[in-house]
Amino acid sequence: MVVSPEEEHPVKAFGWAARDESGILSPFPFSRRATGEKDVRLKILYCGVCHSDLHSAKNDSGDGEVTYPVIPGHEIAGIVTEIGSNVTKVKVGDKVGVGCMVGSCRNCPNCENDLENYCPKMVLTYKSKYFDGTTTYGGYSDFMVCDEHFVIQWPENMPLDAGCPLLCAGITTYSPLKYFGLDKPTTHLGVVGLGGLGHVAVKFAKAFGSKVTVISTSPHKKEEAIKGLGADSFLVSTDQDQMMAAASTLHGILDTVSAPHSIQSLLNLLKPHGKLVILGLMVKPLELPAFPLVSGRKMVGGSGIGGMKEMQEMMDFAAERNITADVEVIPMDYINEAMERLGKADVKYRFVIDIAGTLKAE
Amino acid sequence: MVVSPEEEHPVKAFGWAARDESGILSPFPFSRRATGEKDVRLKILYCGVCHSDLHSAKNDSGDGEVTYPVIPGHEIAGIVTEIGSNVTKVKVGDKVGVGCMVGSCRNCPNCENDLENYCPKMVLTYKSKYFDGTTTYGGYSDFMVCDEHFVIQWPENMPLDAGCPLLCAGITTYSPLKYFGLDKPTTHLGVVGLGGLGHVAVKFAKAFGSKVTVISTSPHKKEEAIKGLGADSFLVSTDQDQMMAAASTLHGILDTVSAPHSIQSLLNLLKPHGKLVILGLMVKPLELPAFPLVSGRKMVGGSGIGGMKEMQEMMDFAAERNITADVEVIPMDYINEAMERLGKADVKYRFVIDIAGTLKAE
Repeated sequence: MVVSPEEEHPVKAFGWAARDESGILSPFPFSRRATGEKDVRLKILYCGVCHSDLHSAKNDSGDGEVTYPVIPGHEIAGIVTEIGSNVTKVKVGDKVGVGCMVGSCRNCPNCENDLENYCPKMVLTYKSKYFDGTTTYGGYSDFMVCDEHFVIQWPENMPLDAGCPLLCAGITTYSPLKYFGLDKPTTHLGVVGLGGLGHVAVKFAKAFGSKVTVISTSPHKKEEAIKGLGADSFLVSTDQDQMMAAASTLHGILDTVSAPHSIQSLLNLLKPHGKLVILGLMVKPLELPAFPLVSGRKMVGGSGIGGMKEMQEMMDFAAERNITADVEVIPMDYINEAMERLGKADVKYRFVIDIAGTLKAE
Repeated sequence: MVVSPEEEHPVKAFGWAARDESGILSPFPFSRRATGEKDVRLKILYCGVCHSDLHSAKNDSGDGEVTYPVIPGHEIAGIVTEIGSNVTKVKVGDKVGVGCMVGSCRNCPNCENDLENYCPKMVLTYKSKYFDGTTTYGGYSDFMVCDEHFVIQWPENMPLDAGCPLLCAGITTYSPLKYFGLDKPTTHLGVVGLGGLGHVAVKFAKAFGSKVTVISTSPHKKEEAIKGLGADSFLVSTDQDQMMAAASTLHGILDTVSAPHSIQSLLNLLKPHGKLVILGLMVKPLELPAFPLVSGRKMVGGSGIGGMKEMQEMMDFAAERNITADVEVIPMDYINEAMERLGKADVKYRFVIDIAGTLKAE
């Protein structure tokens, strides 16, 4: 027996979903589970529009097929409206955040080391199967129910709209800077791509005291990178002379671009022992030359979001240093236009949906 | 004015050289510099035959064009016959080793951190330009003159013939095990390819107390890997079922194969945060999928030989643990047959030329 999304759980909910590979989103009544003893129910106030929302809506993300309907959204800021009997982390009325995941096994080596994001049973905030067998639905919706372990306590001075993108774009850049040791005042960091992830990466790196070079195909982004975000220098990746002149200058690079591109010239920018960290899920394999690895002990790594402990640490650090995303707040019914603009990188730098103010059940 | 190799230096020397891309070696009179104040002159006793000697002789190594004639050989054991006035490290009569490099700038950040091997001005033991503008010639020759900094003190109980391959094959595997933190009793290490490098890698890893899985295309190597070298298990890389069953079991892999091969199935063997270390100079770029990097924080690195301090440490450690290469000692005039066999991987596991006993000027 197939139960409809509207009937499978006891609590009526409402969101916007993509129904097919057009990726077009439209109003979608569904349901959420009742608040369990370790669960938090939150009214969603704002939700960021991540580039992977677009890929998931269109089913071209490179991390597995989606089953429609898809309600995207994993940069969620909200307010607690109900808690289960065993919840201790938050109380009704608290501001909270939910990022890219809502579940994990909680007892594998990764979970035990606060790396729930690498748990083989990690459950994504949307398009995953939850432990009860139902599909998870994301933050383009009126409320959520989430195990308290996967809820972030919202720092007091952090704005909800400009803060919510940190739950994905923030942790995705903060975590590898920490893990790969690229968070030092002595670090000279390259950031490839000045979009949702890239602009936050620059802010974190500058907060760590590092020197930052933005690398982009778009010469017109130079001014915003340097004057707007505080980067120290800018390289046009298609300018061979500039790229050659900057050879062997960087300790590490965060590559935020998921469109196909060559990494050979990026490896060339690294000093010996330098680290190129891939954050985008390119669908086609990268071409990796062995020579710079062997002759310069360079490495190519990757990283995906971060664990819950590090998420909280990142949010607290960002609040302390006044780091937020640069956002354009939009109403829910603008989402399809926003997605089209996002596909053309026409946003500085993150759309955030004003869920509470504009999402209305029809 | 072009000065011939026989005339460019004051001291007559004799070796075997490749003259063209056939890679065929033949007797070759040349010359060496007089012993400078920081130089050590050593009579060569044994020299290992590294796979890169074969590639260099044939000019297909992937690390730059060679200029013929080429005298290969960078796994050199010898005895000091003369020292310069400012030499303090060794004295006449000492047993010494020379590995893959004979010079570096000595004041860049790499040199200052005992990583001369990554100095941009590093001079290879053969086929490089030395600081005086002359070409370096390797260990398939009667004697060498080498700056004392690039000479290893030979451990007392280390055999010269079975020990000399450690100067390349040993350090090339020891150094990445240390650098990438794969030298722990808790490490489960994969070693891809059971040749000159691979068999020494297994011995070092076992000496560190690690669990070792050998991965090879050749099922018949299972017995030698496990019974002969002490590996714990063996995977046939072409057996999909075996490879799938071993998914997510390894902390790291040393990949010693320089022939073209896929790394996708190797990445699949790694646990989250696992490290694939490339040691072979594949000419064609590797195909690197982004998904295992991002979703499992796996990384692909590389490593090339090691610095002089670590070379000495490695040799001392090997001597203490009775680690040597498994060698087949050959006379100089067998070298062309040996090279042919090496090209077919028909050696267990390293040819070593008995230079002092068999190299005769005609």
